[in-house]
Amino acid sequence: MSIEPRPPMPASQHTVFFVSDGTGITAETFGHAVLSQFEMRFRQVRLPFIDTIDKAREAARKINEAFAADGQRPIVFSTLVKPDLSAVIRTAGGMHMDLIQTFVAPLEQELGVMSTHTIGRSHNIVDSQEYKARIEAINFSLAHDDGQSHKNLSSADVILVGVSRSGKTPTSLYLAMQYGIKAANYPLIPDDFERGKLPSSLPEFKEKIFGLSITPERLSEIRHERRAGSKYASIENCRYEVNEAELMMKREGIRWLSSTTKSIEEIATTILQEIKPNRREY
Amino acid sequence: MSIEPRPPMPASQHTVFFVSDGTGITAETFGHAVLSQFEMRFRQVRLPFIDTIDKAREAARKINEAFAADGQRPIVFSTLVKPDLSAVIRTAGGMHMDLIQTFVAPLEQELGVMSTHTIGRSHNIVDSQEYKARIEAINFSLAHDDGQSHKNLSSADVILVGVSRSGKTPTSLYLAMQYGIKAANYPLIPDDFERGKLPSSLPEFKEKIFGLSITPERLSEIRHERRAGSKYASIENCRYEVNEAELMMKREGIRWLSSTTKSIEEIATTILQEIKPNRREY
Repeated sequence: MSIEPRPPMPASQHTVFFVSDGTGITAETFGHAVLSQFEMRFRQVRLPFIDTIDKAREAARKINEAFAADGQRPIVFSTLVKPDLSAVIRTAGGMHMDLIQTFVAPLEQELGVMSTHTIGRSHNIVDSQEYKARIEAINFSLAHDDGQSHKNLSSADVILVGVSRSGKTPTSLYLAMQYGIKAANYPLIPDDFERGKLPSSLPEFKEKIFGLSITPERLSEIRHERRAGSKYASIENCRYEVNEAELMMKREGIRWLSSTTKSIEEIATTILQEIKPNRREY
Repeated sequence: MSIEPRPPMPASQHTVFFVSDGTGITAETFGHAVLSQFEMRFRQVRLPFIDTIDKAREAARKINEAFAADGQRPIVFSTLVKPDLSAVIRTAGGMHMDLIQTFVAPLEQELGVMSTHTIGRSHNIVDSQEYKARIEAINFSLAHDDGQSHKNLSSADVILVGVSRSGKTPTSLYLAMQYGIKAANYPLIPDDFERGKLPSSLPEFKEKIFGLSITPERLSEIRHERRAGSKYASIENCRYEVNEAELMMKREGIRWLSSTTKSIEEIATTILQEIKPNRREY
């Protein structure tokens, strides 16, 4: 990779390519992390499933086209396992960041074994245990969304509780989709506050319950988007529910966090740190 | 958190660390892509939210501990934005793959601007338009799962159709969660085949409809897991439904793919290539 310093060009736009022999999701996730360090807009082009020399040549042509159109080198994030495909992409004029090639060779040295691209083996993701566990977890989380089902709670990895609209559903689905975690979720509702007790099916699973809270102001905002002007969304009601839910979680010794300024990724990561479901090795 | 006691390992095992000032998801996604090139098992440790010098020192201590316990260098994937935190991690004995530091400095040169870590700015993800669009898309996809709602189909980005258990629900949720795509999904059922027509609310949106099919054998397998021994799961019925669904999609000019051996990531990527919803710039 050679880099030539150039003056800033405010008017021009850079094109970024994500090139992969698979879906390109890794290249894109990584590229976004790097690009998010820059307060600029980029034109993005995904080129997934580049798994033959012909497709690689076509991809290289598109990169060169963008170079000509933009008047500046495109930025190319690639995750191509096969060195011959990677070599074709590198013939194009671009700033190349080849994630696999950069790190796999040093790792072969470090681990003292050859990588599978070297020995030509490939995996069928869909048949893997890990993939099946993820699909099963998604189905489980959907079936156990919003307290819909009390069945099989013993096989849940995590049970999220919190007032309506505190972020339980997207967090449950994210845990399932990203980590294969079976995440049920239960709303805490005024009935529970009046009884002063957790929903009756939950206490026996206390060690895997995690709570989400939220500021009443933010909750009211979110609820107004759904049901404008309702008592449900009123700030008084939100204050009451949040206060009662937090008191209950404290009383019951339930770990919880405030979702107010946290993304679902941040919430999910914190939950994994706290609950430690034993699924992290592969 | 100290490293938990471990059972004796058959041969030596490498410990892999994912170190991040945020959730560590980028480090992990990237690390998995690289490690999947090796047919080995790794002990994995995530160290998220390492955002102070003290936490970085604690992380470095854990890496050194693993080094001593394993008798070989841990592999460290890190995405630390601040150079001073990164420097502390690098004092630990490990094979360091520092994704941000490796690529941000060259990009500053290339783009002719300083990155935000350099000028000390930070983002609140939760307030970003992109994040809000993702949450909205998740809510939309849930509300429009399995033909539950005909409302607001005009604001769907994609409408998936296919027989029951062909993969529509996980794909819809993945499109929403990963890309902020509003994905509705509709089952094609025997009633539709008898009428010989798509569900009545769909034809006006044909340009954003995408079909999922599956082999009858695989479908029967999946349905037996849900309802063992049912007519619904029988191979004869699965053959009938799949055949009718494919005939209908051909007749209606609907693009479709077979989900049989494809992961939800691969299906989602293919759909994005075909439907091209215009949400890919940021």
